Amino acid sequence: MDFNADLGESFGLWERGADDALMRVISSANVACGFHAGDPGAMRRAVASALEHGVAVGAHPGFPDLLGFGRRHIAAAPEDVHDYVLYQVAALDGFVRAAGGRLHHVKPHGALYMQALDDAGLARAVAEAVAAFDETLTIYTLAGSELAGAAEAAGVRPVPEFFADRPLREDGTVVMFGWQPLFDPTPEAVGERVRSLVETGTVPALDGTPVPVDAETVCVHSDTPRAGELGAAVRASAETAGATITAESFTRGG
Amino acid sequence: MDFNADLGESFGLWERGADDALMRVISSANVACGFHAGDPGAMRRAVASALEHGVAVGAHPGFPDLLGFGRRHIAAAPEDVHDYVLYQVAALDGFVRAAGGRLHHVKPHGALYMQALDDAGLARAVAEAVAAFDETLTIYTLAGSELAGAAEAAGVRPVPEFFADRPLREDGTVVMFGWQPLFDPTPEAVGERVRSLVETGTVPALDGTPVPVDAETVCVHSDTPRAGELGAAVRASAETAGATITAESFTRGG
Amino acid sequence: MDFNADLGESFGLWERGADDALMRVISSANVACGFHAGDPGAMRRAVASALEHGVAVGAHPGFPDLLGFGRRHIAAAPEDVHDYVLYQVAALDGFVRAAGGRLHHVKPHGALYMQALDDAGLARAVAEAVAAFDETLTIYTLAGSELAGAAEAAGVRPVPEFFADRPLREDGTVVMFGWQPLFDPTPEAVGERVRSLVETGTVPALDGTPVPVDAETVCVHSDTPRAGELGAAVRASAETAGATITAESFTRGG
Amino acid sequence: MDFNADLGESFGLWERGADDALMRVISSANVACGFHAGDPGAMRRAVASALEHGVAVGAHPGFPDLLGFGRRHIAAAPEDVHDYVLYQVAALDGFVRAAGGRLHHVKPHGALYMQALDDAGLARAVAEAVAAFDETLTIYTLAGSELAGAAEAAGVRPVPEFFADRPLREDGTVVMFGWQPLFDPTPEAVGERVRSLVETGTVPALDGTPVPVDAETVCVHSDTPRAGELGAAVRASAETAGATITAESFTRGG
Repeated sequence: MDFNADLGESFGLWERGADDALMRVISSANVACGFHAGDPGAMRRAVASALEHGVAVGAHPGFPDLLGFGRRHIAAAPEDVHDYVLYQVAALDGFVRAAGGRLHHVKPHGALYMQALDDAGLARAVAEAVAAFDETLTIYTLAGSELAGAAEAAGVRPVPEFFADRPLREDGTVVMFGWQPLFDPTPEAVGERVRSLVETGTVPALDGTPVPVDAETVCVHSDTPRAGELGAAVRASAETAGATITAESFTRGG
Repeated sequence: MDFNADLGESFGLWERGADDALMRVISSANVACGFHAGDPGAMRRAVASALEHGVAVGAHPGFPDLLGFGRRHIAAAPEDVHDYVLYQVAALDGFVRAAGGRLHHVKPHGALYMQALDDAGLARAVAEAVAAFDETLTIYTLAGSELAGAAEAAGVRPVPEFFADRPLREDGTVVMFGWQPLFDPTPEAVGERVRSLVETGTVPALDGTPVPVDAETVCVHSDTPRAGELGAAVRASAETAGATITAESFTRGG
Repeated sequence: MDFNADLGESFGLWERGADDALMRVISSANVACGFHAGDPGAMRRAVASALEHGVAVGAHPGFPDLLGFGRRHIAAAPEDVHDYVLYQVAALDGFVRAAGGRLHHVKPHGALYMQALDDAGLARAVAEAVAAFDETLTIYTLAGSELAGAAEAAGVRPVPEFFADRPLREDGTVVMFGWQPLFDPTPEAVGERVRSLVETGTVPALDGTPVPVDAETVCVHSDTPRAGELGAAVRASAETAGATITAESFTRGG
Repeated sequence: MDFNADLGESFGLWERGADDALMRVISSANVACGFHAGDPGAMRRAVASALEHGVAVGAHPGFPDLLGFGRRHIAAAPEDVHDYVLYQVAALDGFVRAAGGRLHHVKPHGALYMQALDDAGLARAVAEAVAAFDETLTIYTLAGSELAGAAEAAGVRPVPEFFADRPLREDGTVVMFGWQPLFDPTPEAVGERVRSLVETGTVPALDGTPVPVDAETVCVHSDTPRAGELGAAVRASAETAGATITAESFTRGG
């Protein structure tokens, strides 16, 4: 099982995120590419740190919206989204190549991630940009989403994702916003969900119902409170339950 | 002999430059990469047009200064310049790769071009970023500049450049600013300078003295008045004088 | 009757719009404030030109989206929109004050204009920002819109607007997008619509039905093809029909 | 004696600075205006906090350089600097007016501050922008600088400043960069310098020589390590030495 987190979200002199703590426990990093966060120097440093820790590097492209951190839905044309994704993926790839590594995956950020779950046009734009750049990359998204389908159609492998720090509804959908009153993502709670996923393939919904979860990678958000502790808990739980945390299992025909 | 011009300098809905006219006569295009001009869509379109016209594509990285069009000197740290160049070159390369082409060269833009002529630290930063990305790229700059030396030191071939539409002083240096009262770049004048270069290896300075010019590529600025006509005159003069306009002569061990 | 147009939409070296032609015929200018277009220098120049031509100056705030020219819907929080509007209105007011003039009105731009027609929260945010800055300003919007109501609630006078170069549906709503196959905004067609408005208070819808239009100001978009000619036609038609083109009629208790 | 610090330097979700600690001890705040740091929301919040604490609000305009935090020298034309300053001062003034306060002063940020000390053209551009907006504002700068002279020439009062956390050379000039190996700005050291200034009108240079300092306002940088403690030490020392910390002494004819 892979364990991913968003890193490299600083910008200029502004620092943000739990990069150091998370880099020690994850197996793949989603590195911001300068549109919603990150800048060329932050990208270089995040890539160097990931390679040093044996962490696979993914591109984390977002909408061009520094003020909104890429979290605000923008009615961008699919053609523009295609170009935004290609630009950002290629830019990050430059730092990975210069550091002697190889780009591993692409995970859209924030509003782009959310919009590509349901919007077929945007999903196709994202998937085709990734495929045009390098068909051996993978795309992290939710199982069954428009983006997962578009990735397959474009010849790129989608990797289904589980958000360890966000609750599930009974129907299996994720509560991405407004979850705070519903769920307290303590290290214990998050670790228990990962244990359940690894051992049973299900995770309890908010009402306790076990929900089947199709996931090859687990995510913890780097700005969830106590993100470093959550990361350690995820790794410990997964390993205790018998999983190996690695980005290799599904990589390039693995 | 190669003939290059800066293209793809639009931004969002704002258009700029004589792209269509120049694309028909040049052999290599310097495509803006989004920091001083250009945006992902403009990059995609410029790359597509260049490939369609058989024009070699180069990256044209600049300082992050949209308001100043990358023309204002900025006291950026060499480390930052390294990262800015790597980011932009890689981003443009993504569009070239996605279009089935191959990136050909790098030419710094505006203030970055000027500062890298004399500032050894910046020159090394630019050259090492290019070398780290792809050692088979070439760097367009003035013969004898710090950047030419730094390129060689970094293992990247520098390609010496002649500005057909900017006058020379007797000592061989170029008048990059404030040349308007000194020189009228008509198609005739610019064509005559190119003829002289091809036939004699010298170009008359402002006072008429013939000055030896070491150049494998000729440049016309896309915002010099009548740029399209200047481009046609450069090509016609070069060909009449017996030169072939092509980006291939010096490419990758050629 | 007032006649307004968007001006000052250049950015850095990029120029855009039919400012010179329109400035001669309009009575009020909506000046871009740097978020979707315009920059400090463009703002200063547009304000100076407007004052020279006796044209009233309004602020034209937009979303922070240079790449999309402020035309893409963005799911920004009302609190953020409030702050964006206050920032931009105040910044433009600085240039107006420094030039010895007085700010006249506020007209939201592009997607912000459209979203504030229907979204009560955004409309209130815009209106309250304007009111907090200066209650004697007016807000240009469509009659009956959420923004018109919010302006009144905030103690700011809304000025109803008619788009001379955009067709109407039978129900009186404006076709803001995709109108090109439906309507050809020639100077004659646009002039005829203005004549009809002045003489009858109605304008024919796409199917010919006369639709009552509540408007104190008429707008021509500066990037509609032949905008300069359309502007001249609007002014000529309005004056021939007996209207006086002036921003004064509804100004500050007028 | 006035005590000023730079505040409101967050941007989007990125937070920065010791605003809460410093706001309790200073008498005037220099609020970033969005070009090098700050955004409309950060400006609104900083202004509200300052007014709540009885702290005078100043504008802190910088170069348009988020990536460099406005600290990199930029060869901007004086005309552009004039417009940048006017834009930013006016934008901040909007938040101050909307909150029921009155703008108090202008202090250029970073590279703009430094360049205006020595560059007469830039200094005049800054001073004239401030004067054009509101002649009753004051400008914080070093005594004897080009900006101090330009302010007087433009009819705006310059307020001489002392940097409590930066060492002095024997000739009275300030060591703004590379001071770390020379001087350790502990609360004790900084407090002692302020005591010396208040009691003797001199401050010891790096070699111990007492240097006369002409200052009506004292500054602590919000990103000097332990800035909150330094601020408390400055205030305590000044008050123990008999000074009253207030922005009123030199305000508007006071």
